[in-house]
Amino acid sequence: MSLLFHHPLCPHSRFIRLALAEYGLDADLFEEKVHERRQDFLLIDPAGRTPVLVADGGLVVPGAGPIAEWIDEAYGPNTPAARLMPGDIAGRVETRRLMDWFNGKMFAEVTDWLVTQKVYKRFMPSKAGGGAPDMTLVRAARANIRHHLAYIGFLVSERNWLAGPRMTYADLAAAAHISVADYLGDVPWDEDELAKAWYQKIKSRPSFRALLADRVIGMAPSEVYADLDF
Amino acid sequence: MSLLFHHPLCPHSRFIRLALAEYGLDADLFEEKVHERRQDFLLIDPAGRTPVLVADGGLVVPGAGPIAEWIDEAYGPNTPAARLMPGDIAGRVETRRLMDWFNGKMFAEVTDWLVTQKVYKRFMPSKAGGGAPDMTLVRAARANIRHHLAYIGFLVSERNWLAGPRMTYADLAAAAHISVADYLGDVPWDEDELAKAWYQKIKSRPSFRALLADRVIGMAPSEVYADLDF
Repeated sequence: MSLLFHHPLCPHSRFIRLALAEYGLDADLFEEKVHERRQDFLLIDPAGRTPVLVADGGLVVPGAGPIAEWIDEAYGPNTPAARLMPGDIAGRVETRRLMDWFNGKMFAEVTDWLVTQKVYKRFMPSKAGGGAPDMTLVRAARANIRHHLAYIGFLVSERNWLAGPRMTYADLAAAAHISVADYLGDVPWDEDELAKAWYQKIKSRPSFRALLADRVIGMAPSEVYADLDF
Repeated sequence: MSLLFHHPLCPHSRFIRLALAEYGLDADLFEEKVHERRQDFLLIDPAGRTPVLVADGGLVVPGAGPIAEWIDEAYGPNTPAARLMPGDIAGRVETRRLMDWFNGKMFAEVTDWLVTQKVYKRFMPSKAGGGAPDMTLVRAARANIRHHLAYIGFLVSERNWLAGPRMTYADLAAAAHISVADYLGDVPWDEDELAKAWYQKIKSRPSFRALLADRVIGMAPSEVYADLDF
C-alpha cells in the first residue's frame, strides 16, 4: 500500500487524493503538520511540504505536479479510458498550463492565504507564526477567487471540461482549490452559474466523497460544503 | 521559427533558453516587461508571466514546467542522446522534484526577491510598485542562497549531475537561478567548492554562451559573471 503525507485542507494534497481515486489507487493517509518540520518527514523530502507520496516499493514522489505526472506514467497506460493527462500534445500543454494556473497562481492569490490564515495559524504556536488570521489577506483572497471562478466559467462555456472535451488533471486541480475555499465558506456561488454547474458535476464523482467527509477539529465546514445540490 | 517571450534576468526564461539550446532548437526572443500587463501578451497567455513559447505552427506553450515537458515530448524522441528528461521512472521523478525545487522553492526564497528588488523595480513606475529595493528582502535572499548552494554541493557529492549520472533539466533549472544571482553579484562562491565546480562545468557549455552575453541596461554584471574560470 502506498502512503500519502497530506493535510486535509492542503489543496495540493486534495488534488492528489482525487487523482489517486480517479485512477483507482488506494493510499494510506498520514496527516503531516508541515510547520512542525518533523525530522523524519524532512528526511523523506527536504522540501518539507505536502503532498508527498511514498509508493509501493518505496519510491518517494514529492509535490503535486511530479506525483500527477508519475501516476499517469505508471498507471495511465493500463487504464487508458481513465487517463487524466491527454495523449495529444496540445491537450497535454493545456492540461499542464491549467494545473500550473490552479496549483500555482490560484494557490498564491487565494488558497494559500485562506488556509494559512484561517486554518494553519490556529494550530501553530505563536513563535512559529500562529495566532489570529490577518484579515487583509483573507479579504484579498475573497476578492481574487471571483476572477478564478469567472475563468472557470469562461473555460466551460467553450468546452465540456476545463482543458477540453474530457476531464483532466486541470479539473481536479481547480476543484481541489475550490473545495478548500468552499469548506471555509469563501466561494461566492451566486456569481457564476457555469462554474457552479461544473463544480456540481465534479463534486458528484465518487472520487470526491472522501474529501467531502473531511473535518478539521474545531472548524465545521460551510453549510453547502458536503451538499451535492447546493 | 518559434518565439520566446522572456526577460533577460527572469530565471525561468533562462531555464528555457538553456533547454532550447541543448535540444538544438532556435527561437526568436522578445523581451516582455510583464509588469506592463500588455494586452496582446495577456491574450496569448492570461497568466501574464514569462516565459511563454509560441512554437512553429502557433501552439502556445506557457510556463517553464510545461515548456520543458513539451520540448522533451516533441523533440526528445528524435534526439535520444541529448534528452534532458530521463527515460526511467525514478529518474523522471527526481528530475521533476528538482525542477520544482529550483523553479519553485529557490525562486520563492532567493531569485524572485533578488530580481524583483534589484532589477524589475528599477524599471517600474512607482505606482506599479517601482522604486528602491527593499534591502530586507535582498538580505534574506543572500542568506537563503547559501542553503541552495550547499544542497547543490551535497547532490553532486553523490552523483555526476544533480539528478543522477547524466545532465538533466534539474541542472539547467538550478544553473538558470544561480546565473541570475551571479549576474547580480549575490553568489558566495567561496562557500562550496563542489557547487562551484558543478557550475563551472555547466557554465562552459555552448548552451550557456547567450546567457553570459546578456546585459541589462544600466546594470553591469558582477566581475565573475562571464568568466569561465572564476
